[in-house]
Amino acid sequence: MNFQVLTPALVAQFEEIVGPAHVLTAQRTEAAEYAGYGRDHTEDLHYAPEVVVKPANAREVSQIVRLCHENHIPVTARGAGTGLSGGALPLHQGLVLSTERLNNIVEIDERNLQATVEPGVINEVFQRAVQEVGLFYPPDPASKGSCFLGGNLAHSSGGPKAVKYGTTRDYVLNLEVVLPTGDIIWTAANTLKNSTGYNLTQLMVGSEGTLGIITKAVFRLLPFPKHNILMLVPFRQEAQAAEAVAAVFRAGIIPSGMEFMEREAIAWSSDYLKIPLTLPADITAHLLIELDGQDLDQLYKEAEQVYAVLETYDVGEILLADNATQKDELWRIRRNIGNAVRYNSVYKEEDTVVPRAELPTLLRGVKEIGRRYGFKSVCYGHAGDGNLHVNIIRGDLDDEMWNVGLRQPITEIFELCVKLGGTISGEHGIGLVQKGYIGIALKEANLNLMRGIKQVFDPHGIMNPGKIWITD
Amino acid sequence: MNFQVLTPALVAQFEEIVGPAHVLTAQRTEAAEYAGYGRDHTEDLHYAPEVVVKPANAREVSQIVRLCHENHIPVTARGAGTGLSGGALPLHQGLVLSTERLNNIVEIDERNLQATVEPGVINEVFQRAVQEVGLFYPPDPASKGSCFLGGNLAHSSGGPKAVKYGTTRDYVLNLEVVLPTGDIIWTAANTLKNSTGYNLTQLMVGSEGTLGIITKAVFRLLPFPKHNILMLVPFRQEAQAAEAVAAVFRAGIIPSGMEFMEREAIAWSSDYLKIPLTLPADITAHLLIELDGQDLDQLYKEAEQVYAVLETYDVGEILLADNATQKDELWRIRRNIGNAVRYNSVYKEEDTVVPRAELPTLLRGVKEIGRRYGFKSVCYGHAGDGNLHVNIIRGDLDDEMWNVGLRQPITEIFELCVKLGGTISGEHGIGLVQKGYIGIALKEANLNLMRGIKQVFDPHGIMNPGKIWITD
Repeated sequence: MNFQVLTPALVAQFEEIVGPAHVLTAQRTEAAEYAGYGRDHTEDLHYAPEVVVKPANAREVSQIVRLCHENHIPVTARGAGTGLSGGALPLHQGLVLSTERLNNIVEIDERNLQATVEPGVINEVFQRAVQEVGLFYPPDPASKGSCFLGGNLAHSSGGPKAVKYGTTRDYVLNLEVVLPTGDIIWTAANTLKNSTGYNLTQLMVGSEGTLGIITKAVFRLLPFPKHNILMLVPFRQEAQAAEAVAAVFRAGIIPSGMEFMEREAIAWSSDYLKIPLTLPADITAHLLIELDGQDLDQLYKEAEQVYAVLETYDVGEILLADNATQKDELWRIRRNIGNAVRYNSVYKEEDTVVPRAELPTLLRGVKEIGRRYGFKSVCYGHAGDGNLHVNIIRGDLDDEMWNVGLRQPITEIFELCVKLGGTISGEHGIGLVQKGYIGIALKEANLNLMRGIKQVFDPHGIMNPGKIWITD
Repeated sequence: MNFQVLTPALVAQFEEIVGPAHVLTAQRTEAAEYAGYGRDHTEDLHYAPEVVVKPANAREVSQIVRLCHENHIPVTARGAGTGLSGGALPLHQGLVLSTERLNNIVEIDERNLQATVEPGVINEVFQRAVQEVGLFYPPDPASKGSCFLGGNLAHSSGGPKAVKYGTTRDYVLNLEVVLPTGDIIWTAANTLKNSTGYNLTQLMVGSEGTLGIITKAVFRLLPFPKHNILMLVPFRQEAQAAEAVAAVFRAGIIPSGMEFMEREAIAWSSDYLKIPLTLPADITAHLLIELDGQDLDQLYKEAEQVYAVLETYDVGEILLADNATQKDELWRIRRNIGNAVRYNSVYKEEDTVVPRAELPTLLRGVKEIGRRYGFKSVCYGHAGDGNLHVNIIRGDLDDEMWNVGLRQPITEIFELCVKLGGTISGEHGIGLVQKGYIGIALKEANLNLMRGIKQVFDPHGIMNPGKIWITD
């Protein structure tokens, strides 16, 4: 791809569109602040943009993007920068389009159980706003306190509740999108069903900023579940923890959370948070199981059924969280594993996903590959979905091993996923760091279709270039 | 588009691929049987194919499609022919590819709550097969006893349970697709989550046979809900029936069925089925409300909450079906409205859909437009989804009114849907009969993207030509 270098004249035009206060350049921005726009939560990668522009509405986004289209300037959309695949990094420099000012909850439609939001709204801010009127937006990535809904849409983010409620994808009814040419469209209608032409909505979700900029999203909502029960189940054998997951579903229970944590994952996180937690020496893994619903009696009945399933495994003492503080602490431990791992070491996170009953096989395979190649991994994730986050710890691996030597074992992990009916990313996206592996999951015919679709949307290839697949 | 006429040499090649017994031509097939392949359940339309070919597996489909691609022969995929938008009619003649022999349930994976099926499996056959092992496949169009899963995928069919469980789209994990070039791909992986490249799965679902031929589908399944409660609620004011729908949801209840039937819809159907039903003179509409779950006590609690909501409206005596026979009769009445209408008169069915709280406004608008243009309509549908089937009855309308004069009022109905945040098809697809109206729902920029995607998949334009939008 031949991109043009940004000129001062173009920067002046961006300033005219959004106002000078909302255009950042390296020359006149504090270095640490500017550097932040070249990073996300992926390893220790950094790619500096030529300019950062912060539009306030779809019209401004359209004007910016049209200018970039005409002048062949790369455009990388950026939310909160909490991504784990390098999707928001401006690999080919150009313009970073920050959605931080597109942060309005436009409407909560209580009559229709729907809401319209802009992409810069923080996930948890949105969750709380709808909860105030008795409604529920389930997708809740670990970073929910800071991540933007726009980033959630870019990768179809999940989170613990996805096992019962699905991922971001399952809540989107309609999207306002600025196409790379500057045209503004709505992808669908504000309806629960739609059989009117191709599904552009689901094509946008998960496209990681390569097809256009989402400027509004209409989400469906549910009634807020009034009650929940949370239990922490210690296992003496990791593989049994993974096996118990499928057994609970086969018993007819659909938990609202079913999280797997290796011993080290939970230990690192409770240390990091300074939350004391007793871990008997023989415990190797935990499941964190949540049930939710409108009726507490009903939940206790379901909890009894879950206990009955768990009794058939070699488990330690089950902790039933009996107040909001205890529940909150357990969830904080789960949500902060990523931060705790990051605090301890640089790491590479692989977002493996398989049919849920294949999880024990995947886990065994990952550990065996690690032993063979000499790396340590900390594994945890959404076991109810078969989604295992494999964190390869840098520790004292040398540069050669870290940058080159790990490619082979990561390839083997991904090949195992595909062999088990799975794929290489469940919710983090391919972005920059997994694109070299996409050929393991997708055949050339699939990639050709995707490249063709990309060309239809973005003939100049300006939207987030260099992501998802390897290009020239 | 310039298509080639089918030659005897090509027919001979098809016979070589699938065997002569599975190739039908007009010359050597009984006339009524052959004519059947030129019809579906849409009005009284008929378009004769040049040849009907019945492959038995993806390899045969690939060989057939590749030949058609090379020779510019139109290919129209056909399931059971129960479609209501003319999607399976071979408008440009050519080859009808019948999926009737692709009728294997390949695997029911009880460990992972998944199943792999071919497109020619009848919806209800599949439902029963998974129910036998305690599992649940929710999408249940009215034609479930005869319609194929392939047709359900082509239009993302819904049915009564969609209100709680979603449509066909929400159960598809992965599709095996023969592309128009003959390449065979899997669109995704057999996982509940997937953030690995563009979502080709959801692009195929609802594409009405215009992008390729689905030869296998992997569906996720749920635990079968052990219990259900069904109630028939008579209303003295139609608009109140529509209003009550949104009120039930706002009370925190998600029914597994929430069907609206005008007085005439229920009367015609019970007559047609010869099921006696007392309809007091002042009753103008009914809601059929189903609750389902694993625990009967819990369902009765929910039923009480539903009663509390309904009491605030002007309702007649609520019938609580208290045995399986009565439940079955009520559902048969609901499912046979379409057949009853068809039995009474030729009709045009519009598959309108709006945000559910807008249903009373839509219903009033449809009736007002009917009065203004002098046609009678019978309305019923999935009120929980805001999906209203508007059946315009031919009665004694003359040819001019039927073929030309109705275009303006139908346009007005669809414009009203869009104004209310809805669209022109919820679950039947655009197919042939709605394509003239698609510009009401979708802007030119949307249609251009869709046409571009079509070109990427199908460069010779052979797959189901002349559907969804108007082409040359």
